[in-house]
Amino acid sequence: QLREALVKVLTTAAQPQILAGKQLVITAGPTQEAIDPVRYLSNHSSGKMGFALAQAATALGAQVTLVSGPTRLTTPVGVKRIDVTSAAEMLEAVQAALPGCDIFVGCAAVADYRPAQAASAKMKKSGATLTLELTPNPDILATVAAQPNAPFCIGFAAETHDVVSYATGKLERKKLNMIAANDVSDPALGFNTDDNAMTLIWRDAQNEIQQTELPRASKLELAFAIFARAAQLLP
Amino acid sequence: QLREALVKVLTTAAQPQILAGKQLVITAGPTQEAIDPVRYLSNHSSGKMGFALAQAATALGAQVTLVSGPTRLTTPVGVKRIDVTSAAEMLEAVQAALPGCDIFVGCAAVADYRPAQAASAKMKKSGATLTLELTPNPDILATVAAQPNAPFCIGFAAETHDVVSYATGKLERKKLNMIAANDVSDPALGFNTDDNAMTLIWRDAQNEIQQTELPRASKLELAFAIFARAAQLLP
Repeated sequence: QLREALVKVLTTAAQPQILAGKQLVITAGPTQEAIDPVRYLSNHSSGKMGFALAQAATALGAQVTLVSGPTRLTTPVGVKRIDVTSAAEMLEAVQAALPGCDIFVGCAAVADYRPAQAASAKMKKSGATLTLELTPNPDILATVAAQPNAPFCIGFAAETHDVVSYATGKLERKKLNMIAANDVSDPALGFNTDDNAMTLIWRDAQNEIQQTELPRASKLELAFAIFARAAQLLP
Repeated sequence: QLREALVKVLTTAAQPQILAGKQLVITAGPTQEAIDPVRYLSNHSSGKMGFALAQAATALGAQVTLVSGPTRLTTPVGVKRIDVTSAAEMLEAVQAALPGCDIFVGCAAVADYRPAQAASAKMKKSGATLTLELTPNPDILATVAAQPNAPFCIGFAAETHDVVSYATGKLERKKLNMIAANDVSDPALGFNTDDNAMTLIWRDAQNEIQQTELPRASKLELAFAIFARAAQLLP
């Protein structure tokens, strides 16, 4: 733990203050969508990448609001954290935090769908096959990016195949400024791991799609690399 | 942590060895049912009650195999732990552990349903309402209790209303020897809390239903109370 703390100090100390004066809103972790008071839909996001982004941005001089789904992680020093459970709660917290925001980072693995009706009492098992009606959740990243005077929007895409092609489609469809794509089919990387490897894709000043590989590194190192690129692209 | 450790030593030291020579299989925690490689269905069980039961049974002299769904808990000293994810895996691990078992405690919050088909690649969001077909999971407790020469079977019922009536129905339908019922609608008790309060219901030697209240106490204290009653009823 002392070693970890030292590594963090050395990693974050004396960083160039490339995000000085910037306000960031970062989402992290999974969302949980209630089926009834005990059951839920969720996903395997640990929140580690989002928390690393919050830590890196703070070290780079930004003021960070971290809107986090259920995780077991400790809030990085200097970060304002808002805990939420569902996608609907996350959108509400993000919208409340947006005024004055320069960079929005949608790193949470927001559940795409939620049960159409959450039961207020525990469902009884009936034995027969059950059909769960799911309704699409709000797309938080697309909602933020579609606003007038939208902040610089960074998205994440975790895919099991055709990673770069899906991510580029997401960048264009959601009108993002940048997207970080990673392959979660490799169990050593991605969800709930400390390391990751990514392809960073962005739109340059000429509106051309550019991409660069961020090879395997700690999530904190990747977070610094993402913001180093984003800082060059900020208006 | 020292204080906690001391409390545990004092609680478990010099317990009457009422389960000496007994073999127990205890299930704990939630199960996770994969929808695709990243999404799953689960529930809010922390596993704390099942782990407390494993610790108590060991202190009372039993040999314990703990079959646990995904939790963040530490294995109690002296307990053989087998980690599983889904209900199907839990049933398989339980059946492998059953030969020679004297008492089976089904404390896991096994998901009643699983997606009828788990996708091998991450589902793409389509925008429209989605229907998730769910199929009933095997009932681990009922499967164990229905076997010839079944062990003494203890179940748990977490309900939001009509707690005792549902639990008694479950005791009879699944042919259990004992069931511990608790009301999870109280957020201070039940899932992910350290304390609980229960109604213990069992069938006496005359096949009559009996019940007793176990007032609010730590999950470890409740575990001792459950085994104190069970030991009197063992053949």
